[in-house]
Amino acid sequence: MSISKLFNEPIKAVNLGNKGFYDDLRGYGVEAVNLDWKPVAKGDKELIAALDLLSDRAEIDAANKEALDRINAAQPILIGIEPRAADILPGMTGDMLLHAGPPVTWERMAGPMRGAVIGALIFEGRAKTPGEAEALARSGKIKFSPCHEHNAVGPMAGVISPSMPVFVIENKTYKNRAYCTLNEGLGKVLRFGAYGDEVIERLRWMKDILAPGLKKAIELSGGIDLKALIAQALHMGDEVHNRNKAATSLFIRAILPYIVEADLPREEFSAIVTFIDSNDHFFLNLSMHSAKAALDAAEGIKNSAVVTVMARNGTDFGIKVSGLPGQWFTGPAGDINGLLFPGFTEADRNPDMGDSAITETCGLGGFSMAAAFAIVQFVGGAPADAVNYSKKMYEITVGESSAYSIPILDFRGSATGIDIRKVIETGILPQINTGIASKNAGVGQVGAGLVNPPWECFRDAVLAFAKT
Amino acid sequence: MSISKLFNEPIKAVNLGNKGFYDDLRGYGVEAVNLDWKPVAKGDKELIAALDLLSDRAEIDAANKEALDRINAAQPILIGIEPRAADILPGMTGDMLLHAGPPVTWERMAGPMRGAVIGALIFEGRAKTPGEAEALARSGKIKFSPCHEHNAVGPMAGVISPSMPVFVIENKTYKNRAYCTLNEGLGKVLRFGAYGDEVIERLRWMKDILAPGLKKAIELSGGIDLKALIAQALHMGDEVHNRNKAATSLFIRAILPYIVEADLPREEFSAIVTFIDSNDHFFLNLSMHSAKAALDAAEGIKNSAVVTVMARNGTDFGIKVSGLPGQWFTGPAGDINGLLFPGFTEADRNPDMGDSAITETCGLGGFSMAAAFAIVQFVGGAPADAVNYSKKMYEITVGESSAYSIPILDFRGSATGIDIRKVIETGILPQINTGIASKNAGVGQVGAGLVNPPWECFRDAVLAFAKT
Repeated sequence: MSISKLFNEPIKAVNLGNKGFYDDLRGYGVEAVNLDWKPVAKGDKELIAALDLLSDRAEIDAANKEALDRINAAQPILIGIEPRAADILPGMTGDMLLHAGPPVTWERMAGPMRGAVIGALIFEGRAKTPGEAEALARSGKIKFSPCHEHNAVGPMAGVISPSMPVFVIENKTYKNRAYCTLNEGLGKVLRFGAYGDEVIERLRWMKDILAPGLKKAIELSGGIDLKALIAQALHMGDEVHNRNKAATSLFIRAILPYIVEADLPREEFSAIVTFIDSNDHFFLNLSMHSAKAALDAAEGIKNSAVVTVMARNGTDFGIKVSGLPGQWFTGPAGDINGLLFPGFTEADRNPDMGDSAITETCGLGGFSMAAAFAIVQFVGGAPADAVNYSKKMYEITVGESSAYSIPILDFRGSATGIDIRKVIETGILPQINTGIASKNAGVGQVGAGLVNPPWECFRDAVLAFAKT
Repeated sequence: MSISKLFNEPIKAVNLGNKGFYDDLRGYGVEAVNLDWKPVAKGDKELIAALDLLSDRAEIDAANKEALDRINAAQPILIGIEPRAADILPGMTGDMLLHAGPPVTWERMAGPMRGAVIGALIFEGRAKTPGEAEALARSGKIKFSPCHEHNAVGPMAGVISPSMPVFVIENKTYKNRAYCTLNEGLGKVLRFGAYGDEVIERLRWMKDILAPGLKKAIELSGGIDLKALIAQALHMGDEVHNRNKAATSLFIRAILPYIVEADLPREEFSAIVTFIDSNDHFFLNLSMHSAKAALDAAEGIKNSAVVTVMARNGTDFGIKVSGLPGQWFTGPAGDINGLLFPGFTEADRNPDMGDSAITETCGLGGFSMAAAFAIVQFVGGAPADAVNYSKKMYEITVGESSAYSIPILDFRGSATGIDIRKVIETGILPQINTGIASKNAGVGQVGAGLVNPPWECFRDAVLAFAKT
């Protein structure tokens, strides 16, 4: 075709990549189609070489399938409550405070996590004032360690101190256990960095009344099948990360007969039931360690490129990969875009924080948002966005959940088993929805929204994986 | 265009109406488009004349808006339980049995409704055996009357006998009250026509233990706001007709603190909580009379063409219209298409039965199916069908609910206020989802599915309306 002929005909353009060209063409009235194309691995040559090495490798595909099968085969059962975390969490010592996300020092610790550390030291009786607590935390006498390195998870700051009671979950299929604190409720709470008297008093009541009462009930129940509750909740508008209203309701119905049977003093019974009922997020800690129990069983599978941990400490975002056990791949925790509570601005936001992204790692949370339209009223966006987030996740996972299904997607299992190769290949980052903490210690939650992990985590993981 | 030219070119056809022509053309490889067009009012000339008379009438539009406003302004509050229906239901006498749907005689009564009548007479102590009960029912000594004529509703057979306890709802806005029995649970129950010993014993326990205990709790609560519970349940996968799992859970959470406060003997407390918890349909009777309380306030508005009742007795389907108070417009109850429980066939189905279509009349049930995807596993079809049913209903309603919104439709209020003119004009019949009873007395539920009212109800209503 001669140049003159080309320009004598109406131009029809197909644009690849940078959408600016497409926008300009449309501005001139030119018929154009935009293809949302991104260069593989962002055009990073080292990464492309690593991907080439890792693509179409039968041993990796087989190992990934094994990881997905283990996640799907998990049977997380709530079997009890242990009164003191330090007595049961593997590797936890009396001078240790556990926290969310990858390892972090006091110096690099985010405001709300520092607040939670201060509150925990007061709760433990190691300090009488916030000043004393801060001095102790800074002194080097307290060891900080990630929850994830002790088979545990914690929402937001995720601080677990030695005397705190913890839920005990057993994955009946693989016999591994996972641990998590009990959810404190909303408003001023330790996990969002508040440490006032009301926070400490509530923690003491939870230790002295709530935990022993619930422990009795759970034991009488013979174990609560959390997988069954989560599967039902996904058909009732929850995605069990930022929406746990149905799951909390179902948990209340499941445990109630045994709280009755536990024969507690009437005031304690009433206070326990009222406490759980007043907090639609009570189930969050249970969904988190259900996911943890499933994913821990998929750790350490040779050649598996499946992500087993995504977690944030408010400063760094870290991931772990099944085939690279013991290694964290980190990058800076991102800003969360969403809806802020009245009176707060974007400047109040702490970066992304908490172990709760373990739900997404297991195909729940952002990966199941299409099951939970009402959540968009909390995190922003429209129902169609929620559907799109969930659909997109199938492009970066090994497969689907066999237990957790999404009604609007014709009951398709949620996207499960993130493959680091697919993340790098497609440029699609896992979709997480989450609460937003104030960046200042002692304030609490200021909103909720959407966030993605930093690219670096997956880049470094793929490069490390290629070297093995 | 000359005929010869027409047939020398490829034929492109647009088909209106009968799809058979379109199918034939496509069979011959002809390019064709089918328009799903139906003649207005099915081409019935008398009806078209009536519609012409009623179209674009400002006084009807204004009266319809008034009806919708009243439905939307309703505030149904559960305020108590009355131990004996005959003591509180307006116009109910001691020799009366109320039933679902429009009036019906024993001779024309469906099998399962006869079964419920037999059970009720045994429960009342008026008969000792089914044979005695049947003889009494046939004797003319028992007056049969529709629940709807006594400010009440009943699911399925809907039988309310004089000694049965009833929930009392007050519409706080208009001070009118509505009544309904307590839901018996699933399996062999009176409302599906079962009358064995277990049925009668359960009814006695409900009267002696459940009703007095719940009555105390409801009174201590100061009233339970049912509208708020229904609005939340619609964001949790219920449409509160055939799916009430979330609403039942929320009701348990709402009433529980007061059951505790009621200080009942422990065994009674435990039995009451277990009974409600074991039945995900417990809330059905509450959603039904919430709808009844709202619609009763919209009765008798001069010139209003809004439907205030849709109800079935298992033989006839009947509707009532706001501007035509006191009149039933009836047609034969339809067959229900859906999913049958294992072991049953289509021949086991009784035609459509129950007052539960009051939920659809109020914009819930089939009109809100797009809020309840999981229901398609119970009534048949796919989630997309549920969305389509809900969307279609906007074509036959005056407007939308201001309280009950559907997340997937971008939180649009559900289609509310059925206009008989629009039904006739569009040929779109209200979409109802419902349980299927066995046609034989004493058997119970055999499935669930979808059904529409008969055309005749709306035809006769429009013709009567045009005469006024």
